[in-house]
Amino acid sequence: MHQPDRVSLREVAPRDGLQNEPPVPTADKIRLIDALSRTGLERIEAVSFVSPKAVPQMADAAEVWAAVEKHSGIRYSALAPNLRGVQRALDAGFTAVEVVVSASETHNRANIGRSVDQSLAELPDICGLAREQLASIEVIIATSFGCPFEGDIAPAQVARIVEAAEAAGAGRVAFGDTTGMGTPRRVTELLDAVDTALPMLMHFHDTRGTALANLLTALDRGVVEFDASVGGIGGCPFAPGASGNVATEEVVHMLHDMGVETGVDLEALIRTAELAQEIVGRPLESGVLRAGPRTSLTPKP
Amino acid sequence: MHQPDRVSLREVAPRDGLQNEPPVPTADKIRLIDALSRTGLERIEAVSFVSPKAVPQMADAAEVWAAVEKHSGIRYSALAPNLRGVQRALDAGFTAVEVVVSASETHNRANIGRSVDQSLAELPDICGLAREQLASIEVIIATSFGCPFEGDIAPAQVARIVEAAEAAGAGRVAFGDTTGMGTPRRVTELLDAVDTALPMLMHFHDTRGTALANLLTALDRGVVEFDASVGGIGGCPFAPGASGNVATEEVVHMLHDMGVETGVDLEALIRTAELAQEIVGRPLESGVLRAGPRTSLTPKP
Repeated sequence: MHQPDRVSLREVAPRDGLQNEPPVPTADKIRLIDALSRTGLERIEAVSFVSPKAVPQMADAAEVWAAVEKHSGIRYSALAPNLRGVQRALDAGFTAVEVVVSASETHNRANIGRSVDQSLAELPDICGLAREQLASIEVIIATSFGCPFEGDIAPAQVARIVEAAEAAGAGRVAFGDTTGMGTPRRVTELLDAVDTALPMLMHFHDTRGTALANLLTALDRGVVEFDASVGGIGGCPFAPGASGNVATEEVVHMLHDMGVETGVDLEALIRTAELAQEIVGRPLESGVLRAGPRTSLTPKP
Repeated sequence: MHQPDRVSLREVAPRDGLQNEPPVPTADKIRLIDALSRTGLERIEAVSFVSPKAVPQMADAAEVWAAVEKHSGIRYSALAPNLRGVQRALDAGFTAVEVVVSASETHNRANIGRSVDQSLAELPDICGLAREQLASIEVIIATSFGCPFEGDIAPAQVARIVEAAEAAGAGRVAFGDTTGMGTPRRVTELLDAVDTALPMLMHFHDTRGTALANLLTALDRGVVEFDASVGGIGGCPFAPGASGNVATEEVVHMLHDMGVETGVDLEALIRTAELAQEIVGRPLESGVLRAGPRTSLTPKP
């Protein structure tokens, strides 16, 4: 199997993680982002600019962003569902914005209240606006590996959105395994179907145990950018009690053992997972958080 | 990546699973094995013949085995730590016995109270005894991917035990990831070091999230036999609260989606995982048990 020398990770706990947990205080969000900024992570999705009525967890996005430490080596980004959200993110000073659109018609309507075509029609304006302000746009394609409402998603549906994103002038595409339906087969079939010059990032959930197997499959196919959430925070939105985002420390732990660099200090990351656990106030399911890395030994009997 | 048409799974919840949980009533063990026998699984590790003082969970092994349904298409087996245990298993009527020895000296002493060489020295007698009774012996090499006391285990140490097992007349070797230290790298390095004509089986724990990534790596290298535990029962013996055995339904779920046959009815298996959860009396961590398979959809909004 092919493996790269280096993988670039984007930490999504402050946004995708906390958005799927009960609301936490603004000060805790700032503490979490500041701690993540000191782990060696090079990309952090910090907040989203969404309707505070729909997502009260992110109502303080501008306030959080204004208060956090900005490290020069880190690319911070915000997520937005539409042109208005992108404008708010740019106004707040972000130079990297993710726009989300679902490959599933039903999920796009449930998630952002419009059709896929309506979302795609706005992309050229979004990319134009970002270009004017020297910001970059990434298009995140939710439900890329399956939709909790519609089931399997044809890879061609995903490929169509990639084409639209590229044509609109987006700088990157990301494939979201929104509810953990991804498997090695789905990763392979998606990569077979997509043909683009854009950098590609994959976002896996560990809802059904496949996250690291999916990541390995993607690595073998040349993907070198991944999302992950410290402590695995952020449950599965459609399966209460089930785990969601793959834990960053599980990704880093496996990659480092394989000799793949991430730039992350695993010990600092595990301490940050402990902080995340304290902030969300429930035991997190990350195996590396619970059991420690494979190098943490038990005293001999 | 290479994938086979078919994989053979051995279910280990009744033995390896229940051995690492607080003791459960004999009747529940029988219920669990009988339910597993109706899922299409072709191999079940039913009990172990160990010291009842050291492992009270298995004190009723002969009683359990006498009472369970024996399906003609299923290969039932028992585990034993030494010649005396193998004799008891054969006396109870088993025709397939697993003998365990650790690749780690410290773990072998902690686990079965003797040196690795003492364990290996007994193998020819064990295999001879089994041959007389037309039974088969598998040698399970515990801590094959790392030892909680010693850390990394040199693949050459594992290879030495494989050679001894083959020379003694064992019919199969299994590699145990006893405390979840396995990673794709460790699987690859082990398979690079081992050279044997014997069939090989791998036993992964999901303690640090790598179980299915390890399995994928092993599949790519031609391994087609794996252990798994329904519901993922059986914690990590050296990390209280951490998960242990990979859940059979997570393995079957991923393999079937990839088009790899196992002969198992996933729905029946998930119902058995529910039974296992009821028997051990705590919420189990299997993602496929909690969230359902990826094909179980949410009603459209």
